Amino acid sequence: MTDRLSMTFAALADPTRRAILARLLTGETTVSDLAKPFDMSGPAISKHLKVLEHAGLITRGREAQWRPCRIEPRALKNVDDWLERYRQFWEERLDRLEDFLNELQAESATGRRPTKASRHPKEKSHGRKK
Amino acid sequence: MTDRLSMTFAALADPTRRAILARLLTGETTVSDLAKPFDMSGPAISKHLKVLEHAGLITRGREAQWRPCRIEPRALKNVDDWLERYRQFWEERLDRLEDFLNELQAESATGRRPTKASRHPKEKSHGRKK
Repeated sequence: MTDRLSMTFAALADPTRRAILARLLTGETTVSDLAKPFDMSGPAISKHLKVLEHAGLITRGREAQWRPCRIEPRALKNVDDWLERYRQFWEERLDRLEDFLNELQAESATGRRPTKASRHPKEKSHGRKK
Repeated sequence: MTDRLSMTFAALADPTRRAILARLLTGETTVSDLAKPFDMSGPAISKHLKVLEHAGLITRGREAQWRPCRIEPRALKNVDDWLERYRQFWEERLDRLEDFLNELQAESATGRRPTKASRHPKEKSHGRKK
């Protein structure tokens, strides 16, 4: 059995499905309206919608004739939550790089060379956001 | 040809590969050390590492005997950038829900029933973060 987060990532690993999601940001719509910009058959679009629905990324209305698709942000929120620890990681890296560049700039202004310590700046524990 | 973002999402659509990334947050390591907690063969782990490397999520040292793996945050940063417009979407939804609940609470305190307008609160244009 595949876990939910893996299903979400697998569903997002396709440019057409990401374009469908982007289209749904502007509001709920029908399958035939969704299909128009893609030059794809209704069944091909329906297949993509099933993958998105199965992954919890969209929901569909229950009306028999008109089953509007709408975006369901919870699955994307789960991706965002998963990213959080990595966000801290790359923000620390950016902070270190920034410190290093500032130090280099200060040193070039005073004509000094960087010390060994400043060439390997230590990790910081704070992030950029929040 | 598969686009880079699709490759990143496809690489993340596997719990073992996400566990490898989480392990690499604590520092660079060798393939054999990585394999230990997973009860997997070296070749099986190597296959996962190739997918992660191909997707730009990790880089590997060039030493013949010891090729340490390290996390490369740029691909994850791209996922974060892609998520940004959806983040605004779900934050607006949360804001509307919050307004609605606050209104319900105020109304139950005064004994009034919610008006039709307050049952369908309008969109807000601001996000929660930034």
